Amino acid sequence: MKRKEIRLSGAGGQGMILAGIILAESSLFDPELYVVQTQSYGPESRGGASRAEVIVSREPIDYPKVVKADILVCLTAESLEKYGQEVAEGGVVIADDSFAGEDYIPPEGVDFYSLPIIAKAREEIGLEVTANMVALGAVDHFLSEIDSECLEQAIEKRVPGGTEEKNMAAFRAGQQLLAARV
Amino acid sequence: MKRKEIRLSGAGGQGMILAGIILAESSLFDPELYVVQTQSYGPESRGGASRAEVIVSREPIDYPKVVKADILVCLTAESLEKYGQEVAEGGVVIADDSFAGEDYIPPEGVDFYSLPIIAKAREEIGLEVTANMVALGAVDHFLSEIDSECLEQAIEKRVPGGTEEKNMAAFRAGQQLLAARV
Repeated sequence: MKRKEIRLSGAGGQGMILAGIILAESSLFDPELYVVQTQSYGPESRGGASRAEVIVSREPIDYPKVVKADILVCLTAESLEKYGQEVAEGGVVIADDSFAGEDYIPPEGVDFYSLPIIAKAREEIGLEVTANMVALGAVDHFLSEIDSECLEQAIEKRVPGGTEEKNMAAFRAGQQLLAARV
Repeated sequence: MKRKEIRLSGAGGQGMILAGIILAESSLFDPELYVVQTQSYGPESRGGASRAEVIVSREPIDYPKVVKADILVCLTAESLEKYGQEVAEGGVVIADDSFAGEDYIPPEGVDFYSLPIIAKAREEIGLEVTANMVALGAVDHFLSEIDSECLEQAIEKRVPGGTEEKNMAAFRAGQQLLAARV
């Protein structure tokens, strides 16, 4: 397996960093997986942009930055504009359908999914902040390296006490978004 | 200012990752600071070790891994043994006094502080899981690049709702550990 690079991007408060940590920690259940999880903040990221990166590999990870994402999640139009072209051939872009679809053209060989991530969180779960877990459910669909069960255990461990059930429901809603569609 | 590298290490469940994220997010208040925050998980880190790294710089950060820490925090004997020699000249090592002191010899030009971090959290705050915030208070003493007020705001934003007061008290207890000592 070559290394797999996942970039989760959106606005501050959308929980991209927590989603990245959960993704990274879910790898702890696999004794052979190397994982690096990174947040970067720079002057250009002021104004509420948020980005978490996770790299998963069966070999030690020398360069811990995402170069071209294999899986890119965008919960804002700004993040799709910023990262939408930095995706590897064979990769996927998952973006919220509240903004995505009209003028975005993915790179050649990249699949694009415009999904009702935020709407699911708001309407079905009744808690918009669980959009990060809906997104994680969608990512799970494309991430054969990590078992869904490990992701679920990592979610349970990391989300605030008392919110486990809603977050898990959001994760499953995200899985179903793709099960219904792909 | 040259880049400053901070490594927070301990056992899983001691909140080193949350402390790293808070440290990184506190930099958001400074419009000119670049910050990268990383967690790495590999087969060697199974068994409960936990490590978060933060790099702060006034220039873009090309290499986002800690090479030699300027500030190293160790909340377990294992982490002190593992990272205790990878500290830059002029740097500091902060370790919990429940294990540190006897056989650890810091590298030349490195200051060593053996502090009652876990005891403070358990006895003064009444909540051992706030040891991470006590440690952050101690780090604050050596981190001139980030204002204490920014750290406090980042703590308030990130810790679970309802625990802000205890975590803030823990942070201040950590600051005082060094104010009393240095």
